[in-house]
Order: sequence, then structure tokens, then C-alpha cells
Amino acid sequence: MFDMAASRKIKLLGLDVDGVLTDNAIFVGAVADARVEFKRFDIQDGLGIAMLRGSGIEVALISGRHSEATSYRAAELKIADVLQVAPDGKVPAIQALLDRKGLTWEQLAFVGDDLADLPVFERAGLPIAVANARDHIKGLAKHVTIASGGHGAVREVIERLLQSRGEYEAAVDRYLGRTERSE
Amino acid sequence: MFDMAASRKIKLLGLDVDGVLTDNAIFVGAVADARVEFKRFDIQDGLGIAMLRGSGIEVALISGRHSEATSYRAAELKIADVLQVAPDGKVPAIQALLDRKGLTWEQLAFVGDDLADLPVFERAGLPIAVANARDHIKGLAKHVTIASGGHGAVREVIERLLQSRGEYEAAVDRYLGRTERSE
Amino acid sequence: MFDMAASRKIKLLGLDVDGVLTDNAIFVGAVADARVEFKRFDIQDGLGIAMLRGSGIEVALISGRHSEATSYRAAELKIADVLQVAPDGKVPAIQALLDRKGLTWEQLAFVGDDLADLPVFERAGLPIAVANARDHIKGLAKHVTIASGGHGAVREVIERLLQSRGEYEAAVDRYLGRTERSE
Amino acid sequence: MFDMAASRKIKLLGLDVDGVLTDNAIFVGAVADARVEFKRFDIQDGLGIAMLRGSGIEVALISGRHSEATSYRAAELKIADVLQVAPDGKVPAIQALLDRKGLTWEQLAFVGDDLADLPVFERAGLPIAVANARDHIKGLAKHVTIASGGHGAVREVIERLLQSRGEYEAAVDRYLGRTERSE
Repeated sequence: MFDMAASRKIKLLGLDVDGVLTDNAIFVGAVADARVEFKRFDIQDGLGIAMLRGSGIEVALISGRHSEATSYRAAELKIADVLQVAPDGKVPAIQALLDRKGLTWEQLAFVGDDLADLPVFERAGLPIAVANARDHIKGLAKHVTIASGGHGAVREVIERLLQSRGEYEAAVDRYLGRTERSE
Repeated sequence: MFDMAASRKIKLLGLDVDGVLTDNAIFVGAVADARVEFKRFDIQDGLGIAMLRGSGIEVALISGRHSEATSYRAAELKIADVLQVAPDGKVPAIQALLDRKGLTWEQLAFVGDDLADLPVFERAGLPIAVANARDHIKGLAKHVTIASGGHGAVREVIERLLQSRGEYEAAVDRYLGRTERSE
Repeated sequence: MFDMAASRKIKLLGLDVDGVLTDNAIFVGAVADARVEFKRFDIQDGLGIAMLRGSGIEVALISGRHSEATSYRAAELKIADVLQVAPDGKVPAIQALLDRKGLTWEQLAFVGDDLADLPVFERAGLPIAVANARDHIKGLAKHVTIASGGHGAVREVIERLLQSRGEYEAAVDRYLGRTERSE
Repeated sequence: MFDMAASRKIKLLGLDVDGVLTDNAIFVGAVADARVEFKRFDIQDGLGIAMLRGSGIEVALISGRHSEATSYRAAELKIADVLQVAPDGKVPAIQALLDRKGLTWEQLAFVGDDLADLPVFERAGLPIAVANARDHIKGLAKHVTIASGGHGAVREVIERLLQSRGEYEAAVDRYLGRTERSE
């Protein structure tokens, strides 16, 4: 379980991409003399993100690297806010996003794995490291997931966040189109 | 071993795709500015499905997501019934399939891994969760596989199902083109 | 170590492809509306096959399934004999290959993982199952590898085969272009 | 930790590619009747290589095999020296590179996994084997990584190398654009 007070304040779940929504792998090759890159995403993570719809928590992707794979996956998951910036551009990009949404850093839960996430961890209300995060990052996290990135880490974060807010069962019911509870 | 009485009633093996025939991964990238998606299937699962031919048990794929990868794999495995619907459309799609085949829910074994399979688990005669299924789903399953999805879980289900019906050796002989036994 | 007497008779190393040179995975997707299939091969296996050159042991691939991926990998590894047949066509295909080369089944080491390899195991002088082989197949093997298919199983077979023949160090020297030993 | 005296001499980090920057896998298939090959690279390794910029240690890739995937990944990581040669051509290629840079073998740390790296290990000041290296190679290495190739082995080497030189914290600060220290 996450800290209940901190969890209840969250309005935005920020996700690093490589190492968080993926297992840190990129698959690189040439097709017809052009560079092609694939990333490996997890379907159970995707269902978790779908469970957040209607919960009052939005999702944003914040990557320190540009990739068409990330854009395609975000579109499929109906994630509108996709920030693909330079590694040292995460904080200003998130600041602008929070400003636009009228939110504060305290209302941000952020999941990361590596040094480029460190300045975000220092500011976010709920900094969470995945199991495969570098030690440097784990030391700054309030929570470390059991699952690894690309293998259900994001699903685990979402389930724990909903549980810590007492909203997990309602989210399951809502996802299944059953007895909705008002929020 | 599965429950023998329940196993003997089975006429249709329904398989979720992501997380069951795959390890929940999708590989996403751009080729010539178009989205491309790969899925990872297991050849030993495929041989298991081939072993069912002539057994009196049909196979159907029921996915809560559309993917060309699923269609191609189904064609290769000679699976005619491929239902790719919205996550909340699995029950009506299976109902229509059962009706068309003159079967009941009790005659359906179904293998799943996530929340979208929950309403199917509540109806199927033999609901089976893969090792990598969410806990919520495992709690509703009559059996949980040792192998994970995409790493032989479907093969394990098929072998256990045939063993529980006392038909495993006959299926091996039939696959190898040896002394066929009448069924 | 393999049986020394049996090892010294080997003139041909036959390799199943899926589950032996790969981890049983196929990656399936659509590119420009056409089916595309990738297989995952291991570079250390490839170096092992290169070590056999000049050893007097030839290599052949015998697959129960056709795939361009197999043809490309065979070409890269300079394997001339690539038999891609129906699952029940392995024995006659190997028989024809042995006849053409003037060899007997006793001179064949064969590495397999699944039921389609069973009739070959019953005939080959040195039937070897990979760690990820089905139990049915392991029961018929003279040896079971520690490594899994696609993760060094073939390299392990080649190193053990050379060691059992007392030719490992010579093969290393030959690969590195050092003091060749006559064979 | 690496040997401090040996570490302080290093001016060039040479990396084998397959099995070191990857998990030894190549993904092979046909797209529009042409051979396509993908390799799987690790993003945390990439950040490690970025950490070396400004450290006075250059990075070179030395592969015994040609692949467009390697060229693309090198370009992305801003690695100018990419030697893709025959397996037995690594030593002369590195010799020429060292000559051009005015360096000696003692100033080279080299990370490898297989027989083709053996002649390099015999000459390099700091030969390092990855966890998945063949035993033959591990025996010649001064260090063996805990992480496997393609799963953070290169990141581990870089962090240990910087720590052994007492430069790790400075490299983190430099990467994050914080209080730079002169070098």
C-alpha cells in the first residue's frame, strides 16, 4: 500500500517510458534502408491504464527520448499528454503540463527508473521506482515496485494507488460496466 | 489433472490471446510511417493445438483487442473461429458462437489472464487461469497453469485436458500418424 | 560429456529449428498488409557452428515448418542442408539426406524438443533434447542440455560433442587461426 | 570495484556488440522479400555511455559481424568509432584504432563474451567478461559482470570504472547538468 494521505492527493500519474512501460529494450534494425525501432509494451499495463478512466486520475507519458513507438502506444491507450523531450528537459516539461492543468507537484505520482528521472523524483508528491530502477533512483523513491518495467510494474502501481485511495473495487466494477459508484 | 467429469463435457477450448497465447507483450514500431505490431507466439503451443485435431474439441480465439498478428497466427493454426471484440464484448461474442455450434457454456473450457476475462470465467464450465494471470482472475479459476502465457501455458492446458479425458496417448499417436484409435 | 564411442561415430549434427536454435518463439505481424515472421537466434550458437568447420562434422537444419527466417540464418551460418518439411516428413527427409551423403543413422546426432522429433530420436545415434523439450521427448533422449533452445543449447551440444571426441582444444585453436592440429 | 591503478590508465572503452550490448539475440525475418535483422539494445546502457561524455574516456564498438542495427545504435549513442570486422580481424582493427588515437593496449578496457574476443583479452589493460560470457573467456577476464549483456552489463562496467577512478559522483552531476567538477 502507498501512503494514504499522499495517494489521495494524486491527480496525475506521470510515467517514464523506457524501463517503466518497457523492459528498457529497444529493438533496432533496418527496413528498406531506413532505421526502424520497436518497443515492447505490456497488455496488462494497458488494462490498468484503462481502469483509471473515470477515476479522476489522468495519465501522462514523460520520456527523455523520442520514439514513434511511444506515440503509437499512447494513442492506443488514449493518453493525450505525451512529453518526449531531452533527458534534462523533463522538469520544465512537467512544470508546463502541471501549470496547464492547474495542478501542483504534490498532486503528481511519477514512475521512473534512471538518472534522468532524478530531478522529477525530487519534486513529485509520490515518486515510485520500478524494480529494475538504478539504485541511485530507488534511494529517492517513496515506493519500489515488485514487478519490473514492461512486466506489469505500471499495473502494480495503478492497483496499489487505487487500493490506497479505497477505490480499487469501484474501478474494477467500472471497467466491467457493473454497478458504478459515483465519484 | 483437471476434474474428469468437467473435462469430458468440453467441446470447445476458448483462448484469450494476449497473456495466454503470448507473454502479454506487443512490439510496436513504425515502418514506412505506418504502425506495425508484432506478437510473440509459442511453437509448442501450436503443436498442442494441432494435437486437438480429431479429438472432438474445437479451438476458438477470443481477444478483447484487434490485431493482424492474431489473425495470421489463427490462420496458420487452422483456427476458424477468431473473435476480436471490445473487452466488454467477450460474453455476447462467445454466446453467439456457442449458439451457432449448438453448445452450452458448460461445454466451454476458457483460458484467460485478466479482468476482461472475468465475466467469461463466471460462465464457462472449465475456467483456467495462466500462471501470469492477475490474482483477481486466479481466484475465479478452477485451475491455474504452471507455465506462463506464451511459454507453453496453452500446451499445458491441452495436455492436461487430454489426460483428464484419458485421450492423451491417442492424441500423440494420431499426431504422429501411428495406430489411430477410434473416438 | 557424451558417450565417447557414440560421439566418435558422428558425421552429421541435425538440428531442429524452433525450440532448438530459437526459444520456440515466433514474432508475427503485418507490414504493408503482408505477414512477416521473425525468429530469435543466438550468436553464441552461431560461433559454435563455425567451430565445427574443419572438424569433419557437418550441420543440417531439419524443421517441421517453413520460414524465411530459417533460410536466412542457415545462409549466414553457411549451412547448406536445410530441410523444411511437414512435421511428419522429417524421417524421410533425413533418410534421403543420409543416403545422399553415404551416412547411416548411427552417424547422426540430432537435437530436438517436441513430438515431431520423436521418430527421429528413435533412429538417430545420438538423440539430444534441449532443456525446454517436452517430457515425452526428454524420455527418449540420450542427453538433455542444461541451456535452453535459443539460449546456447546448440553451443553446449557442440562443445560437449567436441570434448567427448577429444577435439575441443583443436577446434578452438582452428577457430582462432592458431596452431592447427591434424584430424 | 576494478583495480584502481589499471582503471586510472583507461582512455578507451572497447565494447563487443553481440552478447555485450545485446543478449546475444538477433531477430531475423523477411520484409518484402529482403532479409531484416533486429537487435535488442538496453536504454540504461545507453545512459551509461552518455555519462562517459566529458570523462576523458572514449567508447568504441568492435564487432566480429556486420549489422545495420549496430550502426544505427552507435549513431544514436554518438559513438564515432565502430569497427565491424571479421571475427579474426578484431586485434588488427583495434591496433589501428589505438595507433590513430596515440593510445596503448594498456589504456584499453574491453568487454567481451566469446572466443573471438580472446585475442583482445590477452592484450587489453582491463579485459572484462559479461555474466553470459563463455567460461573460456571468463577465465581470461580481470572482472566478470553481475549483469548480463543487453541487460545492463555495460552500464555496470561504466559505473564501476567511474567509481574505481573516483569519478562517479562527478559524472552523475555532469549528466544532470549540476555542479560540474573540472577533470
